[in-house]
Amino acid sequence: MKQTLLALSTVLTLGSAPATALATSADDLRAVSPALERYTRERLLGEVWERPGLVARDRAIVTVAALVARQQTAELAFYLDRALDAGVKPSELSELITHLAFYAGWGNAMAAVPLARSVFAKRGVKPEDLPEVAPRLLPLDTATEARRESGVQAHVGPVSPGLVQYTRDVLFLDLWQRPALAPRDRSLVTVSALIANGQVAQVTFHLNRAMDNGLTQPQAAEVLSHLAFYTGWPNVFSAVPVAKAVFESRPR
Amino acid sequence: MKQTLLALSTVLTLGSAPATALATSADDLRAVSPALERYTRERLLGEVWERPGLVARDRAIVTVAALVARQQTAELAFYLDRALDAGVKPSELSELITHLAFYAGWGNAMAAVPLARSVFAKRGVKPEDLPEVAPRLLPLDTATEARRESGVQAHVGPVSPGLVQYTRDVLFLDLWQRPALAPRDRSLVTVSALIANGQVAQVTFHLNRAMDNGLTQPQAAEVLSHLAFYTGWPNVFSAVPVAKAVFESRPR
Amino acid sequence: MKQTLLALSTVLTLGSAPATALATSADDLRAVSPALERYTRERLLGEVWERPGLVARDRAIVTVAALVARQQTAELAFYLDRALDAGVKPSELSELITHLAFYAGWGNAMAAVPLARSVFAKRGVKPEDLPEVAPRLLPLDTATEARRESGVQAHVGPVSPGLVQYTRDVLFLDLWQRPALAPRDRSLVTVSALIANGQVAQVTFHLNRAMDNGLTQPQAAEVLSHLAFYTGWPNVFSAVPVAKAVFESRPR
Repeated sequence: MKQTLLALSTVLTLGSAPATALATSADDLRAVSPALERYTRERLLGEVWERPGLVARDRAIVTVAALVARQQTAELAFYLDRALDAGVKPSELSELITHLAFYAGWGNAMAAVPLARSVFAKRGVKPEDLPEVAPRLLPLDTATEARRESGVQAHVGPVSPGLVQYTRDVLFLDLWQRPALAPRDRSLVTVSALIANGQVAQVTFHLNRAMDNGLTQPQAAEVLSHLAFYTGWPNVFSAVPVAKAVFESRPR
Repeated sequence: MKQTLLALSTVLTLGSAPATALATSADDLRAVSPALERYTRERLLGEVWERPGLVARDRAIVTVAALVARQQTAELAFYLDRALDAGVKPSELSELITHLAFYAGWGNAMAAVPLARSVFAKRGVKPEDLPEVAPRLLPLDTATEARRESGVQAHVGPVSPGLVQYTRDVLFLDLWQRPALAPRDRSLVTVSALIANGQVAQVTFHLNRAMDNGLTQPQAAEVLSHLAFYTGWPNVFSAVPVAKAVFESRPR
Repeated sequence: MKQTLLALSTVLTLGSAPATALATSADDLRAVSPALERYTRERLLGEVWERPGLVARDRAIVTVAALVARQQTAELAFYLDRALDAGVKPSELSELITHLAFYAGWGNAMAAVPLARSVFAKRGVKPEDLPEVAPRLLPLDTATEARRESGVQAHVGPVSPGLVQYTRDVLFLDLWQRPALAPRDRSLVTVSALIANGQVAQVTFHLNRAMDNGLTQPQAAEVLSHLAFYTGWPNVFSAVPVAKAVFESRPR
């Protein structure tokens, strides 16, 4: 799909936001649905993004994760720009895409790459701004990892030994320990992608992990209302009972 | 993906249908799978669409909703044209796309916009043919809305107050009451999108609402067999037990 | 999305693999995520594809099925080429796409057609290399079919008679009996598509059918670890309990 990245700054941007524009131009939008143009401008960009429960940086991470997870490349350049303006580092966006290769599918990450490349080029992102291929990994919490490994061994081991091996060696001893994303942000990316794809079965584990890593319950609540717009209401409503059970199970 | 909108009227259209063509040209199709070309022409367009259980206008609404919900833009222009030929108004297609921003995700609606714009331009659709931004809303059934709100408050309130607020203020007090789609058609769009994305958890509420709004059981049954082709058999088979429970729970 | 099919043979291909390249060029990939470029080259193409538990031909079928089922056209040409190099016949790829029109949705098959056409053209695939439109069908196992039909009649009949009819006449008395894909490979395509789209409800029936048709348990286990990369970990983890139940229910 043709990307029309016109700087329609007077129309589709916020007061405090950068002069980037939606790939779907406001002209296109008004020629099809003036109501949707207004919902986008007033409700979504003008109101939801300004709610105090979640900072713009977190909203940007959640949004980009949802778009990559759903392979919605049309709006991706707009939101990558917005993420950078909100303080997400290029290295963090790079790592978000790498992470979602494993959590949303290789093809989803691949589809995001050309868009990210063009945004990075426009911004003058240099090779040294990107995460190292083989960095010094974050220290491993061996007790947590032992519990995780034993659970996966019990449930997955009898079914697919290869899956157990890659889950351990590539995901939890490598990817999750890469320092380019803080564990809390990596969890936020993961939870957003799971909700975006209706994969509620994994939300319990990863929302708990996100909260262990520092995501607060009010922030998680606000992630849900934010995601409703980007993933559609049904995916979020399906995640609500799981989130409720997680919230209730945690010590206050 | 390049759109090849060739008017292969002798090959891929029906007797009574307009001289529009699939984006995937019959030439491409025959060069890859002559069998699939025949299934498309004979079974799908030539037979399923002609079944008496559901009029072409409804089939077009169901099909366009499924394509937008699944972000399948390749065939969208063909089916938007077909919808207009079957009597769906431009204002109704506009509103369908607006509605699915909320029910299938913002990016899905955005991806549909450029296709709809080009079809509208070709047809000479004018701004005054589109739904108003802020129309006089349909009268609200306050008892039904009170029940809905109290259910959402109970289930979602403890998890995400923001989600409760937007569900009420933006969806049920605004979007659903917009007059550009009849409530029965809006429900048909919603149910089709839910089935298309495998979101069976929400089918109970929305299929009941569709039937309250006038969708008959034989029409709902035919929606399922029609959608099997556009969403794949598995999504429809997953919806069958839910539809069965809805059918059985309703007074005859 | 523009397809950049550069022959980056020294970078993204294996020793034994053909000089085809990912649509997402290694340059793009390194400009966004050098780590993901390495994971792709070393872990995925260099290691997962070389594991002994599943031959390259099966891995190619599984991968192409997952990409078509998820409408991930960006990498499709690369993997269609890889499939042909691994011994999958053009007629089998043609039939795989036809099959997934029914099991992943018509639009998914349609989106794959232009890519397959260009790969077929490059390879000099001729009309006579494609499956017949109306071939002599494989002999039907009438006892198995009677059991299937009676189950569907019981569960789907009261809900959608049209769906029962098309499931029998188009799927099980026609599509599944077409000789262009061996039943075991057709089942492998189906199971891969179901897992790729998180449709676990249908995995029990189709994984059993795949194993009845000759897929061994170690092969099925390896399909899961292979698919983790192409469908994302969550879809495969959701399929694990279902696969486990199938494995345990079968006589040894």
